[in-house]
Formats: sequence, C-alpha cells, structure tokens
Amino acid sequence: MKNTKNCNIPVYLNNAATSFPKSPGIGEEVAAFFKKIPKHPGRAGTTSEDTLSLCRKELAHLLKTEDPSRLVLCKNATEALNIAVLGIGLKGEVVITTAMEHNSVLRPLYLLEKKGVIRLEIVPCDAEGRVIKEQWEKRIDEFSPKLVVLNQASNVTGAVNNIEELLKYAKEKESITLLDASQSIGLFDMDVSRIAADMIAFTGHKYLLGPSGTGGLYIKEGIEVEPVFVGGTGIRSDLKEMPPEMPLRLEPGTPPVPAFAGLLHSLKWQKENPVSLEKMANLTRDLEQGLIKKGTEVIEVAGERTFIVSCRLPGWDLKEVGYVLERSFGIICRTGLHCAPLIHEYIGTAPAGSIRFSISRFTTREEIDYTLDVIGELVNADH
Amino acid sequence: MKNTKNCNIPVYLNNAATSFPKSPGIGEEVAAFFKKIPKHPGRAGTTSEDTLSLCRKELAHLLKTEDPSRLVLCKNATEALNIAVLGIGLKGEVVITTAMEHNSVLRPLYLLEKKGVIRLEIVPCDAEGRVIKEQWEKRIDEFSPKLVVLNQASNVTGAVNNIEELLKYAKEKESITLLDASQSIGLFDMDVSRIAADMIAFTGHKYLLGPSGTGGLYIKEGIEVEPVFVGGTGIRSDLKEMPPEMPLRLEPGTPPVPAFAGLLHSLKWQKENPVSLEKMANLTRDLEQGLIKKGTEVIEVAGERTFIVSCRLPGWDLKEVGYVLERSFGIICRTGLHCAPLIHEYIGTAPAGSIRFSISRFTTREEIDYTLDVIGELVNADH
Repeated sequence: MKNTKNCNIPVYLNNAATSFPKSPGIGEEVAAFFKKIPKHPGRAGTTSEDTLSLCRKELAHLLKTEDPSRLVLCKNATEALNIAVLGIGLKGEVVITTAMEHNSVLRPLYLLEKKGVIRLEIVPCDAEGRVIKEQWEKRIDEFSPKLVVLNQASNVTGAVNNIEELLKYAKEKESITLLDASQSIGLFDMDVSRIAADMIAFTGHKYLLGPSGTGGLYIKEGIEVEPVFVGGTGIRSDLKEMPPEMPLRLEPGTPPVPAFAGLLHSLKWQKENPVSLEKMANLTRDLEQGLIKKGTEVIEVAGERTFIVSCRLPGWDLKEVGYVLERSFGIICRTGLHCAPLIHEYIGTAPAGSIRFSISRFTTREEIDYTLDVIGELVNADH
Repeated sequence: MKNTKNCNIPVYLNNAATSFPKSPGIGEEVAAFFKKIPKHPGRAGTTSEDTLSLCRKELAHLLKTEDPSRLVLCKNATEALNIAVLGIGLKGEVVITTAMEHNSVLRPLYLLEKKGVIRLEIVPCDAEGRVIKEQWEKRIDEFSPKLVVLNQASNVTGAVNNIEELLKYAKEKESITLLDASQSIGLFDMDVSRIAADMIAFTGHKYLLGPSGTGGLYIKEGIEVEPVFVGGTGIRSDLKEMPPEMPLRLEPGTPPVPAFAGLLHSLKWQKENPVSLEKMANLTRDLEQGLIKKGTEVIEVAGERTFIVSCRLPGWDLKEVGYVLERSFGIICRTGLHCAPLIHEYIGTAPAGSIRFSISRFTTREEIDYTLDVIGELVNADH
C-alpha cells in the first residue's frame, strides 16, 4: 500500500463525533486537577477565580459576550438543548426547525409534539443538506413560531447555514431563536452581538478539543428559561425553588469540575494556537475530490462548509465498509445516519445513511492520501 | 500549636461534600484515557468491554445485581434523582419523603407539588436527624403513596436509617421506593436483592472516590421510567422517540466518558483496598467526644452512623468559623444548611445550620487531634 510511510495508523477521521487528539497537555492538566483540594467552585461563591468561572469567562470571550453568568455549563449539547427547549415555556405554539437537525434537537421537539404541547414544522433542506432560505422564511411567515431551532452546520455533510440571515428573519417576526452550534463552535467566529441568537447550545468535546462530558448553553439577557431538573445549589438552600441567580438557576447539583478543567485547558490552548481553517478546507476539498475520482458517490458541498465529507461506496453495505476500514486498514470514520435521520431524504442517502469522514486541525495530508488509497482499493475490490 | 508535627495542612474534613483525596492513581488513569482513540463506547454496542460498560459492571457488582443494563450513568446524583422523580409518571398521587432529605430530593418534589402534579407529605425526623419509624409508617398507612423517597444517611448529622425496614414497609403498601444513597454508597454494603428499593440514586464523587461529574441511577427490572431529557443515542437514529433499550433509553447524548474512566479506576481500587469502617468510626467518635469536651454544641448521634459530626460554636457566627478555620488554620469543613434545609428544625440548628466535619478513609488521627486543638482555641478565644 502506498503513502503509509509518513502516516501513523490508526487514522482518526471521526472528529465530527468527538475530536481526537484533544488539546496537547489536557490529560496532564486534568490529572493535576485531581491533586488540588476541592473548594466546590461555583457553588459557594461567584467571584473566585476558580475552574468553572474561568471556563465561563473563556466561553464568554469566545462568544464575544460580556457576561459569563449567561453561560450555563452542561454535560453535553444534548443537555443544553433539552434545558432550552423544555424550559422556554412552550404551550400550544408552533416551533419551527429543519430537516438537517440532530436527534438532540428533533427528539425533544417530537416529545413536546406528542404531548400536544407544540405544533412542529420542519423546514426542508437542499441536496447539500443546507436549509432552504425561501422555505424557512415562508414557514416563519405562515406560522409565526414561538421558537425556532436551527443548526449552524450539518453533522452529515458539513453544509453551513447563513445563520445571520436566517436567525435575523425569525427574530424580526418575534420568534425566540435557538442555535445549535455543536458542529461549528471552535471553528468559526461567533459573535452574539451580531447574530440574532437568543440561545446557543454547544458541546465542548468536538472542535473545542475538550473532554466528553462538557457542553454549554448561552442564554441572552432577558430570555427566561425555567429549570426542568432542580436540586442543590450550595447557596440559598432555604429556598424551595431554585434561586433566581444565573447560571446557578440552571446548574443543580455538583458540577463536573474535572471535565471543565480539561475544557478550560483546551480553550486556552486554542486561543494561543489559532486553528488554520485554510489548511483544513484544503484537505477537505482534496478528500472530496479524491473520493469522487476513486468512484464513490460523494455528497458534494459548494459554498461555506465545515470539514466533513459524506459518501457512499457502490456495491458495499455501509456497516461493512466501516468495519473493513477500521479493522483492516485502521481508518476510523463513521457510517449510518449520524443521529440526523431526516437530512438523508434530501441528500440522497436514505434510508441507510452515509460513510462520513471528518477531519480536525491535526489531520495530515498523508492521512488523507492513505485514506484515498484505501478507498480506491475497496471500490475496485471483488468482495 | 500542638499536634501539628505529623499533620499535613490543609486538613480536609469536607468529604461529605466531595471526597479528597480521590483513589490513588486516578489522575494518571484519566490522563491515559485522553491518549486513547475514542470509540464512542456505550453508543454503538453493548457487548464491548469499554469504559462505560466496565463501569456499569463494577457498579452492578457493588449493588449485587446481575444486570448492568439497569444502571443509568448520570453526571451527578441530582440528575439521577430528577430522572427518577420526574420520569416515574406521577399524576395526582401522594409522594412521601422525609425532613432529612437533600434539596436534590426536595426541590424536584416541591416543583411537582407546585405544578399540582403530586401531594407531598414530609415525615419528621428525630433530634439526631433520623427518620421516625412510627411517623413513616403512619403516613404510608394514611396516604398510600405512589412514591416514597428516602435518604439512607443524613448529610448533616450522619444518622443512618434502617432502610431495610422502612422501604419494606412502603413496598408492602405497593409504593414505588426510591433510595438516595449519595452519603452511603462506598461505605456500606448494598444488596438490591435484600433491600426493597425500586430505584437507587447515588453519586460517584463522595465515598466511591471518583470524579465530580459521575453518578448513577439503579432501576429495578419492571420499573418503567420515561425519559425527560431526550436526544441522540448513536443507534436506532430513525426512531422519533428514545429507543426502549436500557440504559440507552435514559442516557441521551455523548456520555462523560473520561469522568467514568476515573470512577472505574476508583471502583477497582476500592475493591482491592476495602475501607476500614472501624477506623473511621473510631475517629468519628473521638472527634465527636473531643468536640463536646472542647465546649461545642454537638449533634450527638447514637446507633448507626456515617462519618460526619455537626456542631455549633457558642458565640461564633457560622460563616466566620468556616472562614477562620480555613484561612487561619487550614482546616476545610463546611458551614451552613448543607443543602438540607428541613433537618435543622429537628436537630436544633435552625435557621443558620451547623459546622460540619466529615472524614474519609484517608483521615488521620493527627488531623483529628489538630482540629480539636484548633477548635479548643476558638472556643476560648476572645473575638
């Protein structure tokens, strides 16, 4: 096999699921945390420069907001999305979302729909997996939704929405706007003063290079979210309800501090070592074009995108491809629906889904070349 | 000051909040985890011997149950308790709980009460903070509750309930029984075949010596809990609802795997290094008696107990004591209500609460002696 000489195997191309490697030194940082006497940071006080408040500050800096107290630390984006969707006080209104959403958005909304709490409208996407602007606007006009939920970037094709435009349209019609930035945070600049997002849910373990077990929810000043899960807060224990102070109001129980020590390390590292999107874009484009040349059916994405390529291999069962790539060639990618069941109807990969390759800032040219060589072999294989 | 020569300062006596130190080697174990290529354990399969399934197995072993799939991994006991209380399908029934509960139990129940979903009855406790058996039984007889929620051990006084007896009584009246084992797991043997608990909520970061960010909910076979938070599950992405398989049904989103790698390490370490409860009991008794001799007002606990002593210092403001102990003498304890607001009415520490010292298996005689010396100084101090 060619091109393996400079390529360490296994080759990890599943960064849209969780990034690997994480930020250099993260393990040592978390290990050091376990040696520190615990002070229950974030519980007893709000002024101390402890792990959680430093993490909140870094996240606020990342989103370009002044007020770290509006950042609720969660265990994953799923928790953040549930807190937002279930806590915003829906009762009988219409909610609009899109066919490119992840089940972390769809399933909470389906649940509310089934209970008769909302009417749900789903905006279709185009063949690249991008929301169709005209359809988005038409439905907002028609239904005047109380809430809209929008993905910034598809976790299946990498197609990126024009969130400035789409959210602004919804905001002008007085919808509450919730952005799912799980696939984009850590890649693209995010400025809450410029985008009309009332809430932004995100994860820490993808392109922020933090540990699984971290995520967050930004909630704009003035947007009230009622807690669904409640419990101890360390302070104001005499109250029967959660205290009104943010972010405490939405963070019951002992927080996962070691995980956020890891995320804090990653956020600092990333600030000092800005990502080169150009390098990632070039590798993605080369992977995409290479896969086409090798004879796979690629979901091509024109325009703005993240660093994902989805495809199918004619003649191969999806699961079999994933198995062979990992077991025989040491290439870790992901096959199937990627927890986003609706988009496949629009991009031509229903019902089985796609093979998804997703690169990170650490992916090398040699890894892409090796992957393309292997795919070439599979396409030509008599199996 | 006497007795400091063999005593490392700071002295950590806040183990009922979170234990410190954790299991030896935990930091290195978690650091090593970050170097492993992620496989999304627990998402795509249930048979692989991965971190989460190994952790579930160890927890099942600890609770003496055969079926690890009945163990839902949570970020803390608060999440576990909310999943149980909000998911058990209450509608109009009576729920009975006790005055010794933590806000992680009380606040979800108050929330349901406020919404008109339940009628809540709270059983008083005695002057040690232990549930009064006759009152418990009387209320169960009177109200035939759908659900009872019971603390195994008070986080304020350490008083331990006879859970075999109390839960059996509720179970015989056909209540669903939920045990909060946050303060007892890792200390006492737990055998789900012997105790009539339908559900057990617990934390990983106290006496299991694991990281903050870990906890769990055991749900007995036959008890159905509907998910409140829903989202991606890695498999069966085509379903609009959470798949029926346990524990996946109650674990939406990417799990906090590094934290559970730490908990797994702690569970294994603890199995190989069983705790000496006798040593801890002796130190606790000596601390209690010493505090009495020094002139503090101790909440004495006779009978079964954990390793907590609560007291008050005549003439001192609680917060001031905590501050002085930590800043001037390097003794870390906790003062206030300890997130358990009701118990203080019964143990004579309302409304301000108590100074709580809580020891761990690593606490030394020298640390207790030093603490007693310091307390003696404070009692006699002219401040």
